[in-house]
Amino acid sequence: MSTPSPSIFEHPIRVYWEDTDAGGIVFYANYLKFFERARTEWLRTLGFGQQVLRDESGGMFVVSETTVKYHAPARLDDTLVVTAELQSGGKASLTIAQRAYLRTPGQTPSSDRLLAEGTIRLGWVDCTNLKPGRIPAPVLEALK
Amino acid sequence: MSTPSPSIFEHPIRVYWEDTDAGGIVFYANYLKFFERARTEWLRTLGFGQQVLRDESGGMFVVSETTVKYHAPARLDDTLVVTAELQSGGKASLTIAQRAYLRTPGQTPSSDRLLAEGTIRLGWVDCTNLKPGRIPAPVLEALK
Amino acid sequence: MSTPSPSIFEHPIRVYWEDTDAGGIVFYANYLKFFERARTEWLRTLGFGQQVLRDESGGMFVVSETTVKYHAPARLDDTLVVTAELQSGGKASLTIAQRAYLRTPGQTPSSDRLLAEGTIRLGWVDCTNLKPGRIPAPVLEALK
Amino acid sequence: MSTPSPSIFEHPIRVYWEDTDAGGIVFYANYLKFFERARTEWLRTLGFGQQVLRDESGGMFVVSETTVKYHAPARLDDTLVVTAELQSGGKASLTIAQRAYLRTPGQTPSSDRLLAEGTIRLGWVDCTNLKPGRIPAPVLEALK
Repeated sequence: MSTPSPSIFEHPIRVYWEDTDAGGIVFYANYLKFFERARTEWLRTLGFGQQVLRDESGGMFVVSETTVKYHAPARLDDTLVVTAELQSGGKASLTIAQRAYLRTPGQTPSSDRLLAEGTIRLGWVDCTNLKPGRIPAPVLEALK
Repeated sequence: MSTPSPSIFEHPIRVYWEDTDAGGIVFYANYLKFFERARTEWLRTLGFGQQVLRDESGGMFVVSETTVKYHAPARLDDTLVVTAELQSGGKASLTIAQRAYLRTPGQTPSSDRLLAEGTIRLGWVDCTNLKPGRIPAPVLEALK
Repeated sequence: MSTPSPSIFEHPIRVYWEDTDAGGIVFYANYLKFFERARTEWLRTLGFGQQVLRDESGGMFVVSETTVKYHAPARLDDTLVVTAELQSGGKASLTIAQRAYLRTPGQTPSSDRLLAEGTIRLGWVDCTNLKPGRIPAPVLEALK
Repeated sequence: MSTPSPSIFEHPIRVYWEDTDAGGIVFYANYLKFFERARTEWLRTLGFGQQVLRDESGGMFVVSETTVKYHAPARLDDTLVVTAELQSGGKASLTIAQRAYLRTPGQTPSSDRLLAEGTIRLGWVDCTNLKPGRIPAPVLEALK
């Protein structure tokens, strides 16, 4: 199955020069940035801007593990659709599944092509001392 | 005058973790990326996607000079509005004036705050040998 | 075991503002850049500069899978030591194991602290059409 | 004059995939990163690591203006030499002149080729409220 499910959060991303490398394609490390933009917008949609979270709770998410598989390259000017969904989650950590698809202009989402997919494991730390803590319950509930 | 003119091209940009540095603000070099995203979307609006330009003309824009003044910092989750307009242009080079404003959610554009402004001078080169050439006439006309 | 083995390739990396984020620490995606710098220097030590490889063979490595675990944060001005070693390899792909350690100035490598570790799976493609190919035999032999 | 003067601070920088774009050359915004790495090492040589400066003085440098002229492109695997020298300085701001040269392996510095040059104007702010302040006198004296 290579198309995003209608119920999964989607965020559009355009490929600019800054994202590419001398191979003529998107530099692989940048998919972690694309994934994060989508995660951030997903959290915002659920009512949790990250700066507000920091100000209110004194804590922030930190990435503790990432895995990415690269299936096909993206190029300058391409439009990607990046998804985010909860794969598993507890009080101390969450794992988010993410995918980047190439969306062809003028085509339906059913023709999207999977470019990259991965998982991002998030922990929660206190902003001042970076010590691990519990993910705020309202955040956890909203994501589930 | 600190608000964008209604006739000038505007592109919204959200600040993510990737854009910030340990000072807690947007890393200054990243405004060049923000400016380029806005320029690229401006060109696209005028009918000139950069990959299409490369494929059709065999040439591409290259940046020959940049100047940026930084007035105030942007932070995580801020929404910026970045403008692009032609300052001067000839057959061999163009200068684009660009500004980044902080737009406060729920406020009108008249309360935008100027964060950074600069000029980007662009030349045109052949993609294969990187030798300077003339900017394609249709591009030049569309920008004016 | 948290210290690099003496026989493993090591590359020193300094943390600059560009590497950090608003959390005050190195942005996690940047470890993929640090890993690549170390891999590149390792290949160069073995006689294979990447541009030379492209020019001579018409091909290049592409990253097909990455995994990274983050154990502890790095900060501005820290000195890291990044290692690279072959974990497994065949004609179509290689897996490189990589680690980033914090090296305290004036301390011996035995007090290095493991910050991040991961694996990078590399395939080989033709530079012009990006189709998969066989890793050049001399490269494969040198890495083993 | 295209070669660095022997009395000017020099910092070597290698070009990696992360630095390049789909034009096959170093992405222009990255010269600001290269300049900063050289400035940082110059300050460190003079006894002022930036994290130490923050911890001891509670303040930090902020970039208030940048200008860069791009003369020739750099490519993957190139070795650059980046210089930093004080152009002018007062209690509230400094201007640093910086240049990036291409150094050909096996050649003397006299054959270095100027790739990019610019000026970076620095102010000084309090780390907590980002309000402008005076550059610490010992830093100012060391740079002159």
